[in-house]
Amino acid sequence: MRTNIDISKMNLPGDLKNLSSKQKEAVCRQLRNKIIDTVSQNGGHLASNLGVVELSVALHSVFESPKDKIVWDVGHQCYPHKLLTGRFDSFSSLRKENGISGFTKPNESKHDAAISGHSSNSISLALGMATAMSLNNNPHHAIAVIGDGALTGGLAYEGLNNAGKSEKNIIVILNHNEMSISKNTGAMAKYLAELRTTESYLKTKSTVQKILLQTPVVGKPIRDALSVSKNGIKYAVLQSTFFEKMGFEFFGPVDGHNISELERVLAIAKSMNRPVFIHVNTVKGKGFTPAEQQPGEFHCVSKFDKRRGFTPRAADESVSAVFGKMLTEFADSDTKICAVTAAMKYGTGLDAFAKKYRDRFFDVGIAEEHAVTFCAGLAKCGMIPVFAVYSTFLQRSYDEIIHDLAIDNLHAVLAVDRAGIVGEDGETHQGLFDVAFLSTIPNVTVYSPSNTNELSRSLKRALFCDSGIVCVRYPKAFVEDFKYGTTCDDYAFEENGGETLLVTYGRIYKNVKTAQLRLDELGCKCDVLKLVRILPLCDDVINKALSHKYIYFFEEGMKSGSVSEKFALMLFEKGFSGKIFINAIDDFVPQSTVDSAIDRLGLSSDKIFERVREDFGLDKT
Amino acid sequence: MRTNIDISKMNLPGDLKNLSSKQKEAVCRQLRNKIIDTVSQNGGHLASNLGVVELSVALHSVFESPKDKIVWDVGHQCYPHKLLTGRFDSFSSLRKENGISGFTKPNESKHDAAISGHSSNSISLALGMATAMSLNNNPHHAIAVIGDGALTGGLAYEGLNNAGKSEKNIIVILNHNEMSISKNTGAMAKYLAELRTTESYLKTKSTVQKILLQTPVVGKPIRDALSVSKNGIKYAVLQSTFFEKMGFEFFGPVDGHNISELERVLAIAKSMNRPVFIHVNTVKGKGFTPAEQQPGEFHCVSKFDKRRGFTPRAADESVSAVFGKMLTEFADSDTKICAVTAAMKYGTGLDAFAKKYRDRFFDVGIAEEHAVTFCAGLAKCGMIPVFAVYSTFLQRSYDEIIHDLAIDNLHAVLAVDRAGIVGEDGETHQGLFDVAFLSTIPNVTVYSPSNTNELSRSLKRALFCDSGIVCVRYPKAFVEDFKYGTTCDDYAFEENGGETLLVTYGRIYKNVKTAQLRLDELGCKCDVLKLVRILPLCDDVINKALSHKYIYFFEEGMKSGSVSEKFALMLFEKGFSGKIFINAIDDFVPQSTVDSAIDRLGLSSDKIFERVREDFGLDKT
Repeated sequence: MRTNIDISKMNLPGDLKNLSSKQKEAVCRQLRNKIIDTVSQNGGHLASNLGVVELSVALHSVFESPKDKIVWDVGHQCYPHKLLTGRFDSFSSLRKENGISGFTKPNESKHDAAISGHSSNSISLALGMATAMSLNNNPHHAIAVIGDGALTGGLAYEGLNNAGKSEKNIIVILNHNEMSISKNTGAMAKYLAELRTTESYLKTKSTVQKILLQTPVVGKPIRDALSVSKNGIKYAVLQSTFFEKMGFEFFGPVDGHNISELERVLAIAKSMNRPVFIHVNTVKGKGFTPAEQQPGEFHCVSKFDKRRGFTPRAADESVSAVFGKMLTEFADSDTKICAVTAAMKYGTGLDAFAKKYRDRFFDVGIAEEHAVTFCAGLAKCGMIPVFAVYSTFLQRSYDEIIHDLAIDNLHAVLAVDRAGIVGEDGETHQGLFDVAFLSTIPNVTVYSPSNTNELSRSLKRALFCDSGIVCVRYPKAFVEDFKYGTTCDDYAFEENGGETLLVTYGRIYKNVKTAQLRLDELGCKCDVLKLVRILPLCDDVINKALSHKYIYFFEEGMKSGSVSEKFALMLFEKGFSGKIFINAIDDFVPQSTVDSAIDRLGLSSDKIFERVREDFGLDKT
Repeated sequence: MRTNIDISKMNLPGDLKNLSSKQKEAVCRQLRNKIIDTVSQNGGHLASNLGVVELSVALHSVFESPKDKIVWDVGHQCYPHKLLTGRFDSFSSLRKENGISGFTKPNESKHDAAISGHSSNSISLALGMATAMSLNNNPHHAIAVIGDGALTGGLAYEGLNNAGKSEKNIIVILNHNEMSISKNTGAMAKYLAELRTTESYLKTKSTVQKILLQTPVVGKPIRDALSVSKNGIKYAVLQSTFFEKMGFEFFGPVDGHNISELERVLAIAKSMNRPVFIHVNTVKGKGFTPAEQQPGEFHCVSKFDKRRGFTPRAADESVSAVFGKMLTEFADSDTKICAVTAAMKYGTGLDAFAKKYRDRFFDVGIAEEHAVTFCAGLAKCGMIPVFAVYSTFLQRSYDEIIHDLAIDNLHAVLAVDRAGIVGEDGETHQGLFDVAFLSTIPNVTVYSPSNTNELSRSLKRALFCDSGIVCVRYPKAFVEDFKYGTTCDDYAFEENGGETLLVTYGRIYKNVKTAQLRLDELGCKCDVLKLVRILPLCDDVINKALSHKYIYFFEEGMKSGSVSEKFALMLFEKGFSGKIFINAIDDFVPQSTVDSAIDRLGLSSDKIFERVREDFGLDKT
């Protein structure tokens, strides 16, 4: 039997079906090496992918993708799947512009059953697919692979609640590694931890066979397959688990690094033709010692030295960290301040706060809706809640912001991190909608500082001066050493000519200012208006702009619903008769570096410079 | 002992504490009569309120509102609570303009702990309150009262998951009547039904006392109180329920119409000072035979004859019913069409479809997020999903529309019912945000027909011609007998002078047209542009408007993010130099009749007429 195989030369996933267990173990080793090599170069998700190597091989051995639909929740564990489905050679382009996405993308491969990125949607997606297949008399299966972290999201529960009663060919696989991005939280996590260590009720082959004989849908082939097993069968049909109550057949816990065991359980699940829930125990970072020891550090990494296992710590000078320090300082003098995160304690820089003010810190799990409504409850009883959340995930709380905060005009602060382009994570993670959707809600104030000083002043006003819902939005990184830009509260107006005005806010102020200086050298004098409070717009800033003839807006956000649109309309309503040019974003933005995306979108200093220069017919030099 | 008491003369809720059981039963009878009387006159929620009369009395007997916070989920069962907290006399204004709200409203009474209206948020709110009270060393409790229907919402699960581990003074009361607005659905409903009929493990007083003695936080007063009980104690600490796994002390099932039993369990729960979950069985419509027999018919009613117990059926000519018929007809000839509702089978008019095409109809429970993502799964596998949903509830799915539908450019139809002003349900239920938030998402098409013919044509295009996400939005009622308005696909332009243009869409077209005819009589000639496809706006309609000098927009939706704003800006960008006047909505709209709200907002034919007439300095006659 050949064991020294080369997966780069195999026809995958089809060839998997003919391999022996030993050969599959060799496949797993090669997958791990490829993942470690690539992530050490390109950065990306490491620990989660190393944890599902065997599971991915087992899934593609037992099922027939793309006829069977494998839906990876969140998607940051899809690298082995990608390597097994025709993307081995192109994998070196992982997370690069025009390269392989770090998440599943249907337009990248027919094996990527759905978009992934945001958490907890896999069960609902898989149920939709299984239902459609059933309506079309298609006997194939939809399989949702979901982590214990994603299971804290309400959407996952809604999916389970509907899937359990569906009688469709849906299999939910819990990838249980007890380690979501921050430490997993809540009662469900505790319950799963209990299950994880439960001794299976049924341990011997004969008992399992007996059960199977009583189950009409399981045929002889499965029983026979089970008979060849050498060891005692470790999976079990546990009675009375929560998931059984939800209507699923339940198997588990299964050793997620034992391919044979996984395949056997998957084969049984497949044969049942009804909703099945499989609890799989995996070890995050499996097979790479540094990642096994510090899965948190190796969750999502920049490039690292794979021999030394060294990964640079998340930069302490990130805006998130700065925000976290600021908030902790404000909390020193005001005991009403509470901090809330949805499973992003480190990502949002709240770790310092959490350490110092344990009682006033709340990690609610991946549950952004709850986070906002919980803040409403805190605010009702006199606290000042601050929900620190990535822009893209705040989209989940739109209704709760309206219904639970805005109607009652409660005072809460939304600290909107990762605002604007986020780069390598691509479409699903860009923070481009927050301004547009927040602007639809009455009495919402939004600040978009362009440096640390402005962030501090905005946060202070949000906490202590403003009422209602106050948002402070910021990207992961500012350019702090930029010497221009009067720091102010609402806006800064820099006069330099009077006819042409460049309006902007946030981090791309630097690009606008740089372009202005270059235009200046060509004799094209432009004023600059930098907004800090972007909603509501005050009459003052409109009046400052009114006297200009040409007004350019540069905005790192969606155009429809943008500040630029609102500003422009206010100008026209006040009788402005010049020309306006809005430069904002009107479609989903794929992965690349932040700088590259900003350039492609016409928001780099070069592109801004060119945009204005060409309009004025100026020579370049 | 006085039993013929008069609650209209009592000082409630305080006086409740001094009443005997018999007297409290008299209170309950009077509450029921008042509710039946008022709802038979004003319309409103009936069956749900009759089901919680005893529970409300017990809660206000054991707890001390507003120091203890009672949070009513959804709020349509808050009438007894309102009658017990100072609103007996004003209750005849229920659901009327400037009257008592049909939901809890903090600005109406300090006893209304939070805004209610949208489902499943009570646990998160109560947890926030309990947490804030704990931080302030306030020993009081927060109590969430939630129905089994609301428990299908993911937000409720997120709340449970966080509350269970919180160690705060939070009590969750499941009001289990097995009857949400449509028949309750899903695995959780099945599980609860099982629990409902479970025999309590512990039935005798002595056993309970033994348990209580082992529980250090329960003191002698409670044990003594229990000793006076004449009958065997029926509540129980059931082991191994789902809710216990979530970290709660669990009591139940409790007879929700036995005040003494309720009070005893609530007193124990109160004394425990940790998360408690109480399963209460209630009968919807309790005490009013027609409502007990047909709780669905008496869920939310118009005025009715209380002696004959007659309630007029939901008007079959509602736009919802018309939509339902149309969709069923389209489904006759296309087997790919699926219909999805989130617990609103009747409200959205999908009952006909559900009956005819059971396999292609999906009631997912109160789970709007899941509904959209489930549609994405259906669409991925070739079906044409149609999610019929009230505008206000679609807010919950904003992220799923972006992430699961839009990024992958999947074809799904959102049938947005109750678009615009909804009337008596007030702030929480107005359908005013859908256009604004949908417009922020790339590649979304929105139709807003103004009559049945346009609805049919729009729906046909949405199903068979357009791609991506296509929304068809409509109110509960059109005025069908209105003879004006060329039916067209995208828009209708009615020329009548050329200088002044009135732009509008949806049902208020009738008001605009009526105003135009009246203005015409005064010699003020206005053109009218009625939009049917409101997003995206085509160049054609902008060009039609360009030549005018004065353009008035009338829109039944939020101004920020409105079609009017987009239209106006496109005009100006094309060099329009006239005046524009946008008449849309910029704040939350409280309860009143639809007509009154539309008038107050300046969108009635009278107000539109006046608006233009005054600008032109015309005399009235």
